[in-house]
Amino acid sequence: MKVTIGVSNRHVHLKREHLNILFGKDFELEIKKELTQPGQYASTSVVTLKTGKGIIENVRILGPLRDYTQVEISRTDSYKLGLNPPVRNSGDLELSESVTIIGPNGEVTVKEGCIIATRHIHLSEEHIKKYKLQGRETVSVRIKGEKGGILDNVYLKVLPNSFLELHLDTDDANAHLIKNGDIAEII
Amino acid sequence: MKVTIGVSNRHVHLKREHLNILFGKDFELEIKKELTQPGQYASTSVVTLKTGKGIIENVRILGPLRDYTQVEISRTDSYKLGLNPPVRNSGDLELSESVTIIGPNGEVTVKEGCIIATRHIHLSEEHIKKYKLQGRETVSVRIKGEKGGILDNVYLKVLPNSFLELHLDTDDANAHLIKNGDIAEII
Repeated sequence: MKVTIGVSNRHVHLKREHLNILFGKDFELEIKKELTQPGQYASTSVVTLKTGKGIIENVRILGPLRDYTQVEISRTDSYKLGLNPPVRNSGDLELSESVTIIGPNGEVTVKEGCIIATRHIHLSEEHIKKYKLQGRETVSVRIKGEKGGILDNVYLKVLPNSFLELHLDTDDANAHLIKNGDIAEII
Repeated sequence: MKVTIGVSNRHVHLKREHLNILFGKDFELEIKKELTQPGQYASTSVVTLKTGKGIIENVRILGPLRDYTQVEISRTDSYKLGLNPPVRNSGDLELSESVTIIGPNGEVTVKEGCIIATRHIHLSEEHIKKYKLQGRETVSVRIKGEKGGILDNVYLKVLPNSFLELHLDTDDANAHLIKNGDIAEII
Protein backbone atom coordinates (compact mmCIF):
# COMPACT_ATOMS: atom_id res chain seq x y z
CA MET A 1 0.00 0.00 0.00
CA LYS A 2 1.20 3.46 -0.87
CA VAL A 3 1.42 6.42 1.48
CA THR A 4 2.22 10.09 0.88
CA ILE A 5 5.28 11.47 2.67
CA GLY A 6 5.26 14.66 4.70
CA VAL A 7 8.73 15.99 5.54
CA SER A 8 8.95 17.53 9.02
CA ASN A 9 11.52 20.25 9.54
CA ARG A 10 12.62 21.02 13.11
CA HIS A 11 9.74 22.52 15.10
CA VAL A 12 8.38 23.27 18.55
CA HIS A 13 5.11 22.45 20.35
CA LEU A 14 4.33 24.64 23.37
CA LYS A 15 2.17 24.53 26.45
CA ARG A 16 0.31 27.70 27.48
CA GLU A 17 2.63 28.54 30.37
CA HIS A 18 5.66 28.60 28.06
CA LEU A 19 3.89 30.51 25.26
CA ASN A 20 3.11 33.23 27.84
CA ILE A 21 6.77 33.49 28.88
CA LEU A 22 8.10 33.48 25.30
CA PHE A 23 5.53 35.77 23.65
CA GLY A 24 3.69 37.51 26.52
CA LYS A 25 0.59 36.76 28.60
CA ASP A 26 -2.50 35.67 26.65
CA PHE A 27 -0.58 35.65 23.36
CA GLU A 28 -2.43 33.61 20.72
CA LEU A 29 -0.75 31.68 17.91
CA GLU A 30 -1.86 32.69 14.42
CA ILE A 31 -2.30 30.22 11.60
CA LYS A 32 0.27 30.60 8.84
CA LYS A 33 -0.59 27.34 7.09
CA GLU A 34 -2.93 24.44 7.87
CA LEU A 35 -1.14 21.08 8.07
CA THR A 36 -2.57 17.87 6.67
CA GLN A 37 -3.60 16.49 10.08
CA PRO A 38 -6.99 18.06 10.96
CA GLY A 39 -6.68 21.03 13.33
CA GLN A 40 -2.87 21.15 13.20
CA TYR A 41 -1.12 24.20 11.78
CA ALA A 42 2.19 25.97 11.30
CA SER A 43 1.94 29.24 13.20
CA THR A 44 3.36 32.60 12.17
CA SER A 45 5.66 32.49 15.22
CA VAL A 46 9.25 31.27 15.41
CA VAL A 47 11.74 30.87 18.26
CA THR A 48 15.48 30.37 18.67
CA LEU A 49 16.92 27.16 20.16
CA LYS A 50 20.04 27.58 22.26
CA THR A 51 22.47 25.38 24.15
CA GLY A 52 25.96 25.94 25.51
CA LYS A 53 27.25 24.66 22.15
CA GLY A 54 25.18 26.45 19.52
CA ILE A 55 21.98 28.10 18.36
CA ILE A 56 19.39 27.47 15.64
CA GLU A 57 17.17 30.41 14.68
CA ASN A 58 13.75 30.61 13.04
CA VAL A 59 12.34 27.37 14.43
CA ARG A 60 8.61 27.23 13.67
CA ILE A 61 6.00 26.79 16.41
CA LEU A 62 3.23 24.38 15.45
CA GLY A 63 -0.26 24.78 16.87
CA PRO A 64 -2.53 24.26 18.62
CA LEU A 65 -1.02 24.41 22.12
CA ARG A 66 -0.40 21.11 23.88
CA ASP A 67 -0.16 19.92 27.49
CA TYR A 68 3.61 19.67 27.15
CA THR A 69 6.43 21.57 25.46
CA GLN A 70 8.34 19.51 22.92
CA VAL A 71 11.22 20.39 20.58
CA GLU A 72 11.69 18.08 17.59
CA ILE A 73 15.03 18.25 15.80
CA SER A 74 17.06 16.07 13.46
CA ARG A 75 20.36 14.33 14.25
CA THR A 76 22.05 16.93 12.02
CA ASP A 77 20.54 19.69 14.18
CA SER A 78 21.59 17.84 17.33
CA TYR A 79 25.28 18.08 16.34
CA LYS A 80 24.90 21.85 15.88
CA LEU A 81 23.42 22.08 19.39
CA GLY A 82 25.74 19.52 21.00
CA LEU A 83 22.79 17.40 22.13
CA ASN A 84 22.06 13.68 22.02
CA PRO A 85 18.27 13.50 21.96
CA PRO A 86 16.54 10.11 22.08
CA VAL A 87 14.26 8.86 19.30
CA ARG A 88 10.76 9.20 20.76
CA ASN A 89 7.05 9.41 20.03
CA SER A 90 5.32 12.72 20.79
CA GLY A 91 4.80 13.30 24.50
CA ASP A 92 7.26 10.62 25.62
CA LEU A 93 9.78 13.07 27.03
CA GLU A 94 11.23 11.40 30.13
CA LEU A 95 15.04 11.72 30.13
CA SER A 96 14.99 13.54 26.79
CA GLU A 97 17.33 16.49 26.18
CA SER A 98 17.36 19.94 27.74
CA VAL A 99 17.29 23.02 25.52
CA THR A 100 16.65 26.74 25.89
CA ILE A 101 13.83 28.24 23.82
CA ILE A 102 14.06 31.99 23.18
CA GLY A 103 11.11 34.15 22.15
CA PRO A 104 10.66 37.91 21.74
CA ASN A 105 9.33 38.28 25.30
CA GLY A 106 11.51 35.86 27.28
CA GLU A 107 13.13 32.47 27.39
CA VAL A 108 12.41 29.02 28.79
CA THR A 109 14.87 26.24 29.51
CA VAL A 110 13.11 22.88 29.47
CA LYS A 111 14.95 20.23 31.46
CA GLU A 112 13.39 17.56 29.24
CA GLY A 113 11.59 18.04 25.92
CA CYS A 114 14.02 17.81 23.03
CA ILE A 115 13.70 14.64 20.93
CA ILE A 116 14.28 13.18 17.50
CA ALA A 117 10.78 12.15 16.41
CA THR A 118 10.18 8.49 15.70
CA ARG A 119 9.36 7.88 12.04
CA HIS A 120 5.57 7.58 12.05
CA ILE A 121 2.47 7.16 9.93
CA HIS A 122 -0.68 9.08 10.82
CA LEU A 123 -3.74 6.91 10.26
CA SER A 124 -7.15 6.02 11.66
CA GLU A 125 -8.77 2.75 12.75
CA GLU A 126 -10.45 2.73 9.34
CA HIS A 127 -7.06 2.70 7.62
CA ILE A 128 -5.87 -0.07 9.97
CA LYS A 129 -8.83 -2.22 8.91
CA LYS A 130 -8.71 -1.30 5.24
CA TYR A 131 -5.01 -2.09 4.92
CA LYS A 132 -5.03 -5.10 7.30
CA LEU A 133 -2.54 -3.63 9.78
CA GLN A 134 -4.34 -4.95 12.89
CA GLY A 135 -1.99 -5.87 15.74
CA ARG A 136 1.03 -4.08 14.26
CA GLU A 137 2.76 -1.34 16.19
CA THR A 138 5.36 -0.53 13.53
CA VAL A 139 5.93 -1.17 9.83
CA SER A 140 8.77 -0.76 7.34
CA VAL A 141 8.42 1.44 4.28
CA ARG A 142 10.15 1.25 0.92
CA ILE A 143 11.55 4.38 -0.71
CA LYS A 144 12.34 4.28 -4.42
CA GLY A 145 15.05 6.15 -6.28
CA GLU A 146 18.81 6.50 -6.60
CA LYS A 147 19.25 6.73 -2.84
CA GLY A 148 16.27 4.57 -2.01
CA GLY A 149 15.94 1.76 0.49
CA ILE A 150 13.80 0.61 3.39
CA LEU A 151 13.09 2.51 6.59
CA ASP A 152 12.39 0.32 9.62
CA ASN A 153 10.60 1.04 12.88
CA VAL A 154 7.93 3.32 11.45
CA TYR A 155 5.36 3.76 14.22
CA LEU A 156 1.64 3.54 13.41
CA LYS A 157 0.09 6.57 15.12
CA VAL A 158 -3.60 5.72 15.19
CA LEU A 159 -5.94 8.63 15.88
CA PRO A 160 -9.54 9.35 14.81
CA ASN A 161 -9.92 11.45 11.63
CA SER A 162 -6.25 11.11 10.70
CA PHE A 163 -5.09 11.98 7.22
CA LEU A 164 -3.01 9.02 6.01
CA GLU A 165 0.55 10.32 5.84
CA LEU A 166 4.11 9.16 6.59
CA HIS A 167 6.09 11.73 8.56
CA LEU A 168 9.87 11.72 8.16
CA ASP A 169 12.42 14.21 9.45
CA THR A 170 14.75 16.16 7.17
CA ASP A 171 17.62 13.70 7.72
CA ASP A 172 15.57 10.76 6.48
CA ALA A 173 14.24 12.91 3.63
CA ASN A 174 17.64 14.24 2.53
CA ALA A 175 19.36 10.86 2.84
CA HIS A 176 16.81 9.36 0.46
CA LEU A 177 16.35 12.44 -1.79
CA ILE A 178 12.71 12.66 -0.67
CA LYS A 179 10.61 15.77 -1.21
CA ASN A 180 7.36 16.66 0.50
CA GLY A 181 4.52 14.81 -1.26
CA ASP A 182 6.64 11.91 -2.53
CA ILE A 183 5.27 8.39 -2.18
CA ALA A 184 6.48 5.45 -0.05
CA GLU A 185 5.19 1.90 0.11
CA ILE A 186 4.29 0.13 3.34
CA ILE A 187 5.73 -3.39 3.29
CA MET B 1 28.88 -10.31 5.55
CA LYS B 2 29.70 -7.37 7.76
CA VAL B 3 31.42 -4.17 6.71
CA THR B 4 32.72 -1.20 8.69
CA ILE B 5 31.18 2.17 7.89
CA GLY B 6 33.20 5.30 7.17
CA VAL B 7 31.16 8.52 7.26
CA SER B 8 32.25 11.06 4.63
CA ASN B 9 31.69 14.71 5.44
CA ARG B 10 31.62 17.21 2.56
CA HIS B 11 35.07 17.46 0.93
CA VAL B 12 37.01 18.52 -2.14
CA HIS B 13 39.45 16.75 -4.47
CA LEU B 14 41.66 19.05 -6.55
CA LYS B 15 43.74 18.90 -9.70
CA ARG B 16 47.16 20.60 -9.70
CA GLU B 17 46.03 23.57 -11.80
CA HIS B 18 43.30 24.45 -9.30
CA LEU B 19 45.49 23.87 -6.23
CA ASN B 20 47.93 26.42 -7.72
CA ILE B 21 45.19 29.02 -8.15
CA LEU B 22 43.66 28.45 -4.71
CA PHE B 23 46.86 28.13 -2.64
CA GLY B 24 49.67 29.46 -4.85
CA LYS B 25 52.05 27.95 -7.40
CA ASP B 26 53.78 24.70 -6.34
CA PHE B 27 51.81 24.54 -3.10
CA GLU B 28 51.89 21.05 -1.61
CA LEU B 29 49.11 19.49 0.46
CA GLU B 30 50.17 18.37 3.92
CA ILE B 31 48.84 15.25 5.58
CA LYS B 32 46.62 15.97 8.56
CA LYS B 33 45.31 12.40 8.89
CA GLU B 34 45.72 9.23 6.85
CA LEU B 35 42.42 7.78 5.64
CA THR B 36 41.64 4.07 5.59
CA GLN B 37 42.13 3.69 1.83
CA PRO B 38 45.90 3.31 1.19
CA GLY B 39 47.56 6.58 0.14
CA GLN B 40 44.47 8.73 0.73
CA TYR B 41 44.57 11.47 3.36
CA ALA B 42 42.76 14.45 4.82
CA SER B 43 45.00 17.46 4.23
CA THR B 44 45.57 20.37 6.57
CA SER B 45 43.97 22.70 3.97
CA VAL B 46 40.37 23.84 3.76
CA VAL B 47 38.42 25.95 1.28
CA THR B 48 35.11 27.79 1.14
CA LEU B 49 32.32 26.73 -1.23
CA LYS B 50 30.21 29.54 -2.66
CA THR B 51 27.21 29.94 -4.94
CA GLY B 52 24.79 32.78 -5.57
CA LYS B 53 22.63 31.32 -2.79
CA GLY B 54 25.03 30.56 0.06
CA ILE B 55 28.45 29.59 1.36
CA ILE B 56 29.92 26.70 3.33
CA GLU B 57 33.26 27.31 5.03
CA ASN B 58 36.00 24.97 6.23
CA VAL B 59 35.54 22.27 3.61
CA ARG B 60 38.45 19.84 3.83
CA ILE B 61 40.67 19.04 0.85
CA LEU B 62 41.48 15.36 0.53
CA GLY B 63 44.74 14.24 -1.04
CA PRO B 64 46.54 13.22 -3.11
CA LEU B 65 45.79 15.45 -6.11
CA ARG B 66 43.65 13.95 -8.87
CA ASP B 67 43.22 14.51 -12.61
CA TYR B 68 39.93 16.29 -11.95
CA THR B 69 38.47 18.67 -9.38
CA GLN B 70 35.44 17.26 -7.56
CA VAL B 71 33.30 18.66 -4.76
CA GLU B 72 31.29 16.11 -2.76
CA ILE B 73 28.42 17.45 -0.68
CA SER B 74 25.26 16.08 0.93
CA ARG B 75 21.68 16.89 -0.05
CA THR B 76 21.46 18.96 3.15
CA ASP B 77 24.49 20.99 1.98
CA SER B 78 22.96 21.33 -1.48
CA TYR B 79 19.93 23.18 -0.06
CA LYS B 80 22.30 25.62 1.70
CA LEU B 81 24.04 26.26 -1.63
CA GLY B 82 20.90 26.22 -3.79
CA LEU B 83 22.28 23.39 -5.93
CA ASN B 84 20.80 20.17 -7.26
CA PRO B 85 23.83 17.91 -7.71
CA PRO B 86 23.39 14.47 -9.26
CA VAL B 87 24.25 11.26 -7.40
CA ARG B 88 27.49 10.10 -9.03
CA ASN B 89 30.58 7.94 -8.72
CA SER B 90 33.93 9.74 -8.41
CA GLY B 91 35.12 11.22 -11.69
CA ASP B 92 31.73 10.99 -13.42
CA LEU B 93 31.17 14.73 -13.53
CA GLU B 94 29.40 15.41 -16.83
CA LEU B 95 26.44 17.76 -16.28
CA SER B 96 27.12 17.88 -12.54
CA GLU B 97 26.75 21.17 -10.65
CA SER B 98 28.81 24.32 -10.81
CA VAL B 99 30.32 25.79 -7.65
CA THR B 100 32.96 28.36 -6.71
CA ILE B 101 35.88 27.16 -4.56
CA ILE B 102 37.69 29.86 -2.60
CA GLY B 103 41.20 29.46 -1.18
CA PRO B 104 43.61 31.88 0.50
CA ASN B 105 45.33 32.72 -2.83
CA GLY B 106 42.41 32.83 -5.28
CA GLU B 107 39.20 31.24 -6.42
CA VAL B 108 38.05 28.77 -9.06
CA THR B 109 34.57 28.31 -10.45
CA VAL B 110 34.15 24.81 -11.83
CA LYS B 111 31.38 24.57 -14.42
CA GLU B 112 30.94 20.90 -13.53
CA GLY B 113 32.30 19.04 -10.50
CA CYS B 114 29.83 19.18 -7.63
CA ILE B 115 28.11 15.87 -6.88
CA ILE B 116 26.42 13.84 -4.17
CA ALA B 117 28.61 10.73 -3.94
CA THR B 118 26.99 7.40 -4.69
CA ARG B 119 26.91 5.16 -1.63
CA HIS B 120 29.87 2.83 -2.18
CA ILE B 121 31.95 0.03 -0.74
CA HIS B 122 35.71 0.04 -1.22
CA LEU B 123 36.94 -3.48 -1.84
CA SER B 124 39.44 -5.51 -3.86
CA GLU B 125 39.07 -8.47 -6.23
CA GLU B 126 40.07 -10.67 -3.28
CA HIS B 127 37.04 -9.43 -1.31
CA ILE B 128 34.81 -9.98 -4.37
CA LYS B 129 35.93 -13.62 -4.50
CA LYS B 130 35.91 -14.20 -0.75
CA TYR B 131 32.39 -12.86 -0.33
CA LYS B 132 31.03 -14.26 -3.61
CA LEU B 133 30.07 -10.88 -5.11
CA GLN B 134 31.18 -11.74 -8.66
CA GLY B 135 29.06 -10.08 -11.33
CA ARG B 136 27.41 -7.61 -8.98
CA GLU B 137 27.73 -3.89 -9.56
CA THR B 138 25.72 -2.81 -6.52
CA VAL B 139 24.46 -4.32 -3.26
CA SER B 140 22.06 -3.34 -0.49
CA VAL B 141 23.21 -2.99 3.10
CA ARG B 142 21.31 -3.41 6.34
CA ILE B 143 21.70 -0.88 9.14
CA LYS B 144 20.56 -1.86 12.62
CA GLY B 145 19.14 0.36 15.33
CA GLU B 146 16.20 2.58 16.19
CA LYS B 147 16.39 4.37 12.84
CA GLY B 148 17.75 1.39 10.95
CA GLY B 149 16.76 0.02 7.58
CA ILE B 150 18.21 -0.97 4.24
CA LEU B 151 20.22 1.23 1.88
CA ASP B 152 19.93 0.29 -1.80
CA ASN B 153 22.20 1.04 -4.76
CA VAL B 154 25.50 0.75 -2.90
CA TYR B 155 28.19 0.67 -5.60
CA LEU B 156 31.02 -1.86 -5.36
CA LYS B 157 34.18 0.16 -6.01
CA VAL B 158 36.77 -2.50 -6.80
CA LEU B 159 40.40 -1.36 -6.66
CA PRO B 160 43.62 -3.21 -5.81
CA ASN B 161 44.73 -3.01 -2.15
CA SER B 162 41.40 -1.57 -1.00
CA PHE B 163 40.53 -1.54 2.66
CA LEU B 164 37.04 -3.04 2.94
CA GLU B 165 34.79 -0.16 3.99
CA LEU B 166 31.31 1.22 3.28
CA HIS B 167 31.33 4.96 2.62
CA LEU B 168 28.16 6.91 3.41
CA ASP B 169 27.60 10.65 3.43
CA THR B 170 26.49 12.59 6.50
CA ASP B 171 22.82 12.54 5.42
CA ASP B 172 22.75 8.74 5.28
CA ALA B 173 24.70 8.58 8.54
CA ASN B 174 22.52 11.05 10.42
CA ALA B 175 19.25 9.60 9.11
CA HIS B 176 20.25 6.18 10.47
CA LEU B 177 22.07 7.42 13.60
CA ILE B 178 25.32 5.98 12.24
CA LYS B 179 28.72 6.93 13.64
CA ASN B 180 32.08 6.41 12.00
CA GLY B 181 33.19 2.82 12.63
CA ASP B 182 29.70 1.37 12.99
CA ILE B 183 28.90 -1.90 11.24
CA ALA B 184 26.53 -2.64 8.34
CA GLU B 185 25.65 -5.95 6.75
CA ILE B 186 25.78 -6.60 3.01
CA ILE B 187 22.63 -8.48 1.95
